[in-house]
Amino acid sequence: MMLLKNLIPYKRARDIVFKMLEKLIEKRTKLTPIYEVYNKISSEDIASPEDLPMFNRSAMDGYGVIAEDTFGASEINPVILDLLEDSNTPVRNGQCVKLSTGMATPEGVNAVVMKEYCIEGDGFVEIRKGVRPYENISKVGEDIKKGDLIVKKGEVITPYHIGMLSSLGIRHIRVYDLSIGIISTGDELIDLEDFTSTEELKRKKYIINSNTPMFYALIKELGFTPKMYKSVGDDKEEIKEVLLKAMKENDIVITTGGTSVGDRDYTIEVVKDIGELIIHGVQIRPGKPFGFGSCSLEDKEVLLYILSGYPVAAVVQFELFFRNYFKSRRSVYLPLKRGVPSTPGRTDIVRVKLVSENCRTYVEPLRIRGSGVLSSLKDGDGYIIVDENIEGYEKGDYVKVYLF
Amino acid sequence: MMLLKNLIPYKRARDIVFKMLEKLIEKRTKLTPIYEVYNKISSEDIASPEDLPMFNRSAMDGYGVIAEDTFGASEINPVILDLLEDSNTPVRNGQCVKLSTGMATPEGVNAVVMKEYCIEGDGFVEIRKGVRPYENISKVGEDIKKGDLIVKKGEVITPYHIGMLSSLGIRHIRVYDLSIGIISTGDELIDLEDFTSTEELKRKKYIINSNTPMFYALIKELGFTPKMYKSVGDDKEEIKEVLLKAMKENDIVITTGGTSVGDRDYTIEVVKDIGELIIHGVQIRPGKPFGFGSCSLEDKEVLLYILSGYPVAAVVQFELFFRNYFKSRRSVYLPLKRGVPSTPGRTDIVRVKLVSENCRTYVEPLRIRGSGVLSSLKDGDGYIIVDENIEGYEKGDYVKVYLF
Repeated sequence: MMLLKNLIPYKRARDIVFKMLEKLIEKRTKLTPIYEVYNKISSEDIASPEDLPMFNRSAMDGYGVIAEDTFGASEINPVILDLLEDSNTPVRNGQCVKLSTGMATPEGVNAVVMKEYCIEGDGFVEIRKGVRPYENISKVGEDIKKGDLIVKKGEVITPYHIGMLSSLGIRHIRVYDLSIGIISTGDELIDLEDFTSTEELKRKKYIINSNTPMFYALIKELGFTPKMYKSVGDDKEEIKEVLLKAMKENDIVITTGGTSVGDRDYTIEVVKDIGELIIHGVQIRPGKPFGFGSCSLEDKEVLLYILSGYPVAAVVQFELFFRNYFKSRRSVYLPLKRGVPSTPGRTDIVRVKLVSENCRTYVEPLRIRGSGVLSSLKDGDGYIIVDENIEGYEKGDYVKVYLF
Repeated sequence: MMLLKNLIPYKRARDIVFKMLEKLIEKRTKLTPIYEVYNKISSEDIASPEDLPMFNRSAMDGYGVIAEDTFGASEINPVILDLLEDSNTPVRNGQCVKLSTGMATPEGVNAVVMKEYCIEGDGFVEIRKGVRPYENISKVGEDIKKGDLIVKKGEVITPYHIGMLSSLGIRHIRVYDLSIGIISTGDELIDLEDFTSTEELKRKKYIINSNTPMFYALIKELGFTPKMYKSVGDDKEEIKEVLLKAMKENDIVITTGGTSVGDRDYTIEVVKDIGELIIHGVQIRPGKPFGFGSCSLEDKEVLLYILSGYPVAAVVQFELFFRNYFKSRRSVYLPLKRGVPSTPGRTDIVRVKLVSENCRTYVEPLRIRGSGVLSSLKDGDGYIIVDENIEGYEKGDYVKVYLF
């Protein structure tokens, strides 16, 4: 209905955008100290340089033995072993050493008897249970083998990766490092910094620019560096000026507002003037007027995301065409509590809540209100994507839910 | 089997710890600028000071009208209205104004006709579809009503909260602000900073301290401030010294290592000396030797988490007794792909993977390997809790999965 002439299907749009992102980010990597990489995205495959553990360790508190010495040991028929004083001494047949969990096993030791099956005497230990070779021992390479892939290119670094990298002595890794400019446009906008009173807003019919702070946080969530610019009115020259400045200072620029083909379509016009408008309009709901372009500066190419002014539409566009490239959502199939109608030929993004009753979890589509409605964003547990070749879903159908 | 005399049930331990956390954090709040509160935890209920939108706005690109003027309008029988030049002018019967999405509706206007149903002429508009009162208008308070709770005490602040708070002109909110010290103990440990070569590690039987960097990231994930200390050997005096320093500088101190009742139980002994050991040993697996205490300094009370040295056990203890208080996991009921045996009288925490086949998602328990195994941490999608009064689950049983 909106007068966009070249509406393209969701998947085609996504492929175009992701291919350009792929090209861009390969030049935007940074060797970063391990303490700063949490939640950032690795730009390289990392193979383990070593086995982990690097030497055999005791997995229990107990006594290190030669397993064969303990065969047949039991409560009625214990085996007596000499206890060596120093736990680092090599152990020979008939001997044992005391070991705590995590300690290296000395030469000779090939099993550990848990201390609850032992009675320590003066210089000897009564072993009341036999152990198999390597029982209660963490063997070299048990956790990770040398050459195992421990971080994949494109993976988001978790605290567990950091633990693993540290234990291998890796102090820096290479991650993607993107700087992203944020510009909101619209005559009706006033920035949070310039806001004085709600009376003024009501009198002048201003609304506070909430997109810039929201996208600032959305970009921090991805581990990238957001840079905010003052909002601009619906004025071609003003938009051009701030856009050029933001392009110089960033790798990607996100604008909100001014994407419909109407009287306020200035951002789109500016992009056509200064660069290439690659996409304008996608067969999705919400978010149809999504715009995407690129612009070459002297030394680099900058990607431009021209998003809707309405927060919900803008967030959906950001999710589908930006966030999903870097950080995919966990997904789970669950049955619908209510049907979801949809129109073929268009991809619908439907926010949902998960509802659990009697040990079953169901998917409840949220009633669609205006895409300007901020409150509906924070109430969802995730979303489903109704494909363009589907007429919708019925109650009870299993759908793939992408979880927030 | 471990020689802990006062093992207490999981839920009792949790209640004790959470009650003390509740008491502590009420004194640890900080008024924080909106740009810095992403992923932090609100320490207050925030009610909306205003209706949102604050005035009626057009929800579409089109023409603002008096709905009653358009009743009965159709393609064959259009209604002609005078077009006012200025969109802010009050509208009377027989008149209309041009409006873009998001613009305030002027006095008189009570509906908007979408532009695709209108033909604009010179000073007039042909309306080809009737609209009901308030059709295509975002009414005052439609999104949020004055007094509605927009952030709950204890809620984690998302980008959507930040958008909503901004649009209401709220520039600061009060969040919990905790400083958390991290100390790893163990003679076998060498800090990442002091690591020189893996040859040295293998020769001296050292392992690199991976717990400190991992917990540093786990605490950042919660939006709190981690503070790392150098690791200390199994020496009561050394442990006491660093523990006292860390307590002075933080609200909570987390130690790892030295919790089993064995020869290396120095941290527990130190806590008994300088403060009160409240919990030592909980009926959970993994993580049984969990210790918890408190210590009064001149001006404050510090909580002490004495965690296992083995990363998996330490992470489970941190999850159950710290993280879950601040940030609960999203949960979902799904069927098991394989049975999970368990021992009554003990609460088992079982890491699981989600596996989707033919539009159904199943829960696959991860085979338990040693709790020292770092690689098993990053492979899970979540965990299930097998209650102490349950003997386990069978294949096909629906279980509640807490998702990472």
